[in-house]
Amino acid sequence: MTEFFKGIPPIRYEGPDSGNEFAYRHYDPDEKVMGKRLEDHLRFAVAWWHSFAWPGGDPFGGQTFDRPWFGDTMELARMKADVAFELFALLGQPFFCFHDADVRPEGADFAETTRNLEEIVDYIGAKIEAGGPRLLWGTANLFTHRRFMSGAATNPDPDVFAYSAATVKTCMDATHRLGGENYVLWGGREGYETLLNTDLRRERDQAGRFLQMVVDYKHKIGFKGAILVEPKPQEPTKHQYDYDVATVYGFLQEFGLETEVKMNIEQGHAILAGHSFEHELAMAAGFGILGSIDMNRNDYQSGWDTDQFPNNVPEVALAYYEILRAGGFTTGGTNFDAKLRRQSLGPADLVLAHVGAMDVCARGLKAAARMLQDGALERAREERYAGWQSSSAKALLQGGLEACFDHVTRNALAPEPRSGGQERLENLVNRFV
Amino acid sequence: MTEFFKGIPPIRYEGPDSGNEFAYRHYDPDEKVMGKRLEDHLRFAVAWWHSFAWPGGDPFGGQTFDRPWFGDTMELARMKADVAFELFALLGQPFFCFHDADVRPEGADFAETTRNLEEIVDYIGAKIEAGGPRLLWGTANLFTHRRFMSGAATNPDPDVFAYSAATVKTCMDATHRLGGENYVLWGGREGYETLLNTDLRRERDQAGRFLQMVVDYKHKIGFKGAILVEPKPQEPTKHQYDYDVATVYGFLQEFGLETEVKMNIEQGHAILAGHSFEHELAMAAGFGILGSIDMNRNDYQSGWDTDQFPNNVPEVALAYYEILRAGGFTTGGTNFDAKLRRQSLGPADLVLAHVGAMDVCARGLKAAARMLQDGALERAREERYAGWQSSSAKALLQGGLEACFDHVTRNALAPEPRSGGQERLENLVNRFV
Amino acid sequence: MTEFFKGIPPIRYEGPDSGNEFAYRHYDPDEKVMGKRLEDHLRFAVAWWHSFAWPGGDPFGGQTFDRPWFGDTMELARMKADVAFELFALLGQPFFCFHDADVRPEGADFAETTRNLEEIVDYIGAKIEAGGPRLLWGTANLFTHRRFMSGAATNPDPDVFAYSAATVKTCMDATHRLGGENYVLWGGREGYETLLNTDLRRERDQAGRFLQMVVDYKHKIGFKGAILVEPKPQEPTKHQYDYDVATVYGFLQEFGLETEVKMNIEQGHAILAGHSFEHELAMAAGFGILGSIDMNRNDYQSGWDTDQFPNNVPEVALAYYEILRAGGFTTGGTNFDAKLRRQSLGPADLVLAHVGAMDVCARGLKAAARMLQDGALERAREERYAGWQSSSAKALLQGGLEACFDHVTRNALAPEPRSGGQERLENLVNRFV
Amino acid sequence: MTEFFKGIPPIRYEGPDSGNEFAYRHYDPDEKVMGKRLEDHLRFAVAWWHSFAWPGGDPFGGQTFDRPWFGDTMELARMKADVAFELFALLGQPFFCFHDADVRPEGADFAETTRNLEEIVDYIGAKIEAGGPRLLWGTANLFTHRRFMSGAATNPDPDVFAYSAATVKTCMDATHRLGGENYVLWGGREGYETLLNTDLRRERDQAGRFLQMVVDYKHKIGFKGAILVEPKPQEPTKHQYDYDVATVYGFLQEFGLETEVKMNIEQGHAILAGHSFEHELAMAAGFGILGSIDMNRNDYQSGWDTDQFPNNVPEVALAYYEILRAGGFTTGGTNFDAKLRRQSLGPADLVLAHVGAMDVCARGLKAAARMLQDGALERAREERYAGWQSSSAKALLQGGLEACFDHVTRNALAPEPRSGGQERLENLVNRFV
Repeated sequence: MTEFFKGIPPIRYEGPDSGNEFAYRHYDPDEKVMGKRLEDHLRFAVAWWHSFAWPGGDPFGGQTFDRPWFGDTMELARMKADVAFELFALLGQPFFCFHDADVRPEGADFAETTRNLEEIVDYIGAKIEAGGPRLLWGTANLFTHRRFMSGAATNPDPDVFAYSAATVKTCMDATHRLGGENYVLWGGREGYETLLNTDLRRERDQAGRFLQMVVDYKHKIGFKGAILVEPKPQEPTKHQYDYDVATVYGFLQEFGLETEVKMNIEQGHAILAGHSFEHELAMAAGFGILGSIDMNRNDYQSGWDTDQFPNNVPEVALAYYEILRAGGFTTGGTNFDAKLRRQSLGPADLVLAHVGAMDVCARGLKAAARMLQDGALERAREERYAGWQSSSAKALLQGGLEACFDHVTRNALAPEPRSGGQERLENLVNRFV
Repeated sequence: MTEFFKGIPPIRYEGPDSGNEFAYRHYDPDEKVMGKRLEDHLRFAVAWWHSFAWPGGDPFGGQTFDRPWFGDTMELARMKADVAFELFALLGQPFFCFHDADVRPEGADFAETTRNLEEIVDYIGAKIEAGGPRLLWGTANLFTHRRFMSGAATNPDPDVFAYSAATVKTCMDATHRLGGENYVLWGGREGYETLLNTDLRRERDQAGRFLQMVVDYKHKIGFKGAILVEPKPQEPTKHQYDYDVATVYGFLQEFGLETEVKMNIEQGHAILAGHSFEHELAMAAGFGILGSIDMNRNDYQSGWDTDQFPNNVPEVALAYYEILRAGGFTTGGTNFDAKLRRQSLGPADLVLAHVGAMDVCARGLKAAARMLQDGALERAREERYAGWQSSSAKALLQGGLEACFDHVTRNALAPEPRSGGQERLENLVNRFV
Repeated sequence: MTEFFKGIPPIRYEGPDSGNEFAYRHYDPDEKVMGKRLEDHLRFAVAWWHSFAWPGGDPFGGQTFDRPWFGDTMELARMKADVAFELFALLGQPFFCFHDADVRPEGADFAETTRNLEEIVDYIGAKIEAGGPRLLWGTANLFTHRRFMSGAATNPDPDVFAYSAATVKTCMDATHRLGGENYVLWGGREGYETLLNTDLRRERDQAGRFLQMVVDYKHKIGFKGAILVEPKPQEPTKHQYDYDVATVYGFLQEFGLETEVKMNIEQGHAILAGHSFEHELAMAAGFGILGSIDMNRNDYQSGWDTDQFPNNVPEVALAYYEILRAGGFTTGGTNFDAKLRRQSLGPADLVLAHVGAMDVCARGLKAAARMLQDGALERAREERYAGWQSSSAKALLQGGLEACFDHVTRNALAPEPRSGGQERLENLVNRFV
Repeated sequence: MTEFFKGIPPIRYEGPDSGNEFAYRHYDPDEKVMGKRLEDHLRFAVAWWHSFAWPGGDPFGGQTFDRPWFGDTMELARMKADVAFELFALLGQPFFCFHDADVRPEGADFAETTRNLEEIVDYIGAKIEAGGPRLLWGTANLFTHRRFMSGAATNPDPDVFAYSAATVKTCMDATHRLGGENYVLWGGREGYETLLNTDLRRERDQAGRFLQMVVDYKHKIGFKGAILVEPKPQEPTKHQYDYDVATVYGFLQEFGLETEVKMNIEQGHAILAGHSFEHELAMAAGFGILGSIDMNRNDYQSGWDTDQFPNNVPEVALAYYEILRAGGFTTGGTNFDAKLRRQSLGPADLVLAHVGAMDVCARGLKAAARMLQDGALERAREERYAGWQSSSAKALLQGGLEACFDHVTRNALAPEPRSGGQERLENLVNRFV
């Protein structure tokens, strides 16, 4: 045991009236909701990068966190892993996620970097086998190092493309080795800073081919998890190709991947793209590509990715409502892609941020489940479109403009609008959240 | 002749040193640019709605414009058409555009509305034949009337779907009758105000089927123009399905329409979607679906669609640069989807706004042409991707992750980043604008 | 009685478990919170404009609401007032608010307009005396009519300045006559569309002088209510001078009005200015100018003023927390400056929107009160600044840079940062909301 | 001489037709504009931080720039200064600016840090005396180090307040010693991340007192330059107290500093606050507090501070128009608070970015001067307000609401709106830019 969390007790469920800040008040893993344990609904994961690798810097300030494991040696990487599993033990969540760069130091060359990864993966694997949480997904960091500054798959330099592909191979191997349930690609540098030096068509083709290679390799090694793409419209890049769910869906169709790849959707990225979180979830569900979520919160008054821990139950409830409507998670889960505010320096802050977020999610999911079981919202939705159930309405869809024209003129149609009832439905939601 | 523009002279080209505000200083229709007349490059169109139908209201204020043709009779509609062609005669631009609702009064029922449209179309047709400008595109207003408040193609009520389809039939007929070069669909109500009452999947299917019907009807009547969809992310609706070019491209693919339908791209809509105008143009060019443009300017500090006349030459130049790179307009053109500020009450304001905008576009296009002919920008772009011309690079794209891994390890690749040279390219652009 | 709300029962408090949508589930006017009745804390007001005058239009669509009282006659104005007081009777809220233009038709000239106002004010006055709710505030609509298109107080035309001042006089008289508790000024046209035609300094001076005249007149007629300015950054105007609370505070200081005028703060306007609602409230409290609130909700993904009914309890709780910390309302209250979505056509929609909003506010205020009474949040805040209680710290503030320099060097100060504990505090808030 | 800029020639004015990218095409320092040398109008300054200290990182990526002087020793600091003055020699601009942290390494304690500063200031001073450019302004970096994470002047910890004050003293001494023409304060950490832990009133009082101390010290040491505050609404902090010009003006008034302190206005900060650059300049001019500018460009599609080199001449022209209207710079100047894109790795990129920006500014200022000398724009503005010159209009302003009421009724006033002529004025501007 390290000393890092010394004095902080394991977090247990104590119920809503508990005054203990080191307790769950709403998240009881074993509570049954719609016939399934809450833990199995929410499938919480802790993110290695924000929790253990992020130093607390921002564009105008340097490191604020003092962590004994900061540094670039294998020994420190092992200490980081030790502390990570200590946090996991305190929280008791079932999953974690990582990028290669979170867990291993960069080596002197690609071969050493790969060896470092393999070595630390073995170290982490042993902890999983010893009863630690499992890997929800792994991913490759193809954005921090300067070699990726102009893109990874979409780089103008074929060598960077190759380097990126080779890196993804090692990360897919690591994910497979650790029994990961998904593999994620976030293309933070797949985009452009200026159109003036960019060949959009070529870069899109590179990105499409790269993703095909990832899918091919998945099948080759027998990885059974899902391949997930994480949309984001911008930041760090001025424009990123994976702008939002609808954009990525068009991309997947163009490269024949719409049945092979699903979405990892983040609240903060949805906000930056001009959407609500539930919009992106509903879109992905509509396309049949809803995979997993990165749960966080974006500050509505900031124009960048603030990655805050979620704290608004009604908003979280609407997100889980879309997930439950779509059948709930299969391989996906709720990953806290959320970082402490850089002023939250202490070990207790790190624990409490997760405790609060897990409680918020538990409240949200339970509210969503009650709403779905109540059924009034879905009945109202069905009723609104009920006119389309008639055979004449269905025939209209099969006909053409002229058939519609005949229908309108023959019947002297003058359709009257009907109330959308938005406020009534919002009141209904407020009964549950 | 009406009295409306009394005292305002026809606008002629007088060159950059002219001090006459009623003259073109940069737009000489007959100037040859890259071997083509400027008029044939720019293909200017005046928009009926903003110029003749908009009363000057905003969400907090009513009508400011006093126009003698405001009202709902056929006689006033004819007066409006008379004034429109008087403006066209002053400006000398080659095209105009309209919605049905701009040119005809709503009738007591669909049949009368259709008769009104047909009658005014004949009236306008005669003016075209008499040497007036031609129709760049026609379109149906499926958003102002309360019947469309919950959508047109995507309405929960099949009768509204039918009414919309019937209306589009009449507008396509009118466009065809007038020799229009394109037919446009803008779905301002195709979207949602709240997800709570919306079936996203069903509405998308309705929209897809509707567009298929439009394409079918085009072929049936032998309309040779292009079918154009105009993306917009929001406003009036919270979320509109035709969010941006990339979103619409995915939609077209899903319904098998990507070779049948092109884009009508508006500067203001691009801005609302979080993109630059040139981004949307370059995306559409990359997909092979660049059709036409709605030229205006959005206030960068306002969060709604301000539809101002363009006035920033460097920005306009970058837009035309993408258009020229893609080969220039074929059926499309430059439609001024721009309205006077509501305080610009006078007839002279209406003329001068177009004069200024046409000059700005002429300067922009000529700068873009010089930039393209100079070639330095394109050479820099090609050079940046030159590494991909080698056979080994091409082979990498054909291979898989393992081939890349082998390539990296075998060659101990450690790719060094190269300058993107953005400022240098921006300086280069500034030589031409 | 009109027929408008036929069949809709008066709304009564039935408690959180009620399944009746025409009942309050959280708003019990007589519930005691911190020793005061809930009604006296919240001081709800219904807004005449959105509820009775707004036709459901938007920039791309016309009227959707069919209301029997729409039109420009005194008879219809009386019917509108009848319906208004019928809604008030159903809701049982203690206050309402209006602009002159909401309650009276515009006359043929100023004199007739004034007579219309006086007549309808008498009509409304009788209803108040008969036991209807009272007037929270009155105000003048100096933005809808085209005469105000270039500003009211800040108009380049002195006649418009005079017309505006004369109008405000009549509205202050009306407010005084009806026992209004406040008088509000919202300057939707006090700003500019383009700097090119604007004399900022002159317009500011006009605005300052205008407000001084309002304050003078208040004292002259013995009006005891508060004069409130309502900040808004933009919309309809590109830039409005009353941008936000901090801006208006500077303005008040410049014209010697900071002890005479308070703020009417709206959630949606705060959002448009880049602030949270609670920020604006806390700023006003810090300046001692917190007056009243316009409670609504802005869509975070829309860039214009959506004026939706509030529905997010945690957000509303944080707003009331600032209000309670500042001592609660005195003359101010909670005005629902919120409009139905334009698709919410029915009378029931109008009632239910208010019912839901009042319940949301009641939940929010009760949560805020519990938070304040619990005290943990305030204790944490005080503790964070506790270092400033020492006499040496106080002396530092009195000293100068050199004293600080000496203090640092003499003591070799190297201050260590301390955790801001944000997530811990957010968890704390989530115990109450 | 270092080797850094090896092969790059000094930049000379060669005129608009030059094809040499290492030449000024528009900036001829000796060109006379409105009777003053262009150099004396523009007063260009190079920023030490972006040009020499910034490593090219962003929130998702590390250092991209390889600079031989990166590191924390005095020797490297001297090399950095050598390279800086080599760039200055190439560009020939008259000024530069710096923060303490840009020029000296942090010491082991405050005393050593101060000694480091003094030593490097001597080193720089010698270079100035040897004919290098002069110091436009100095400032203290009170935001990068973790000790400032919760604020400098507004920190909850009095020791950080003292440390900040002591630091500012050393920086004012350094600025004074080097003959700096201004001293700037930018409060990037003077704000909050969450209201929950913030005492707004106390922090404002601390900030006000701090600024008073700065002004006192300026007078004490006989520093003749201006004290400038640089507004910014947010980033890094969620909310910064110096939100925009109007906010800071209110702040200055509250603490009696409005005649002692002026503004340093940055384009990018204006954009983030929801304003145009020219708006902020015109506001400051209206308050008599226009001091200096940080010239850069913010990406309109990004929600954070992109600090790009300016490249849009029409926008820059409108900014200089406001500056010239206000009489031009006195102690202030044009500081390039702009950084290379992180992909612009090379020494030539650094030179060319400044060359292009200086040319853009020169074109902008010359266009602004022509516009002002032409006079048509100012005549239109004066004419718009001409009605206020009459004695009756002036009397209205002196009177009260009742006098206005009498005026309106007695004359049966019904003011007619007049065209604002915005497009006409925009056309006029386009003759010059």
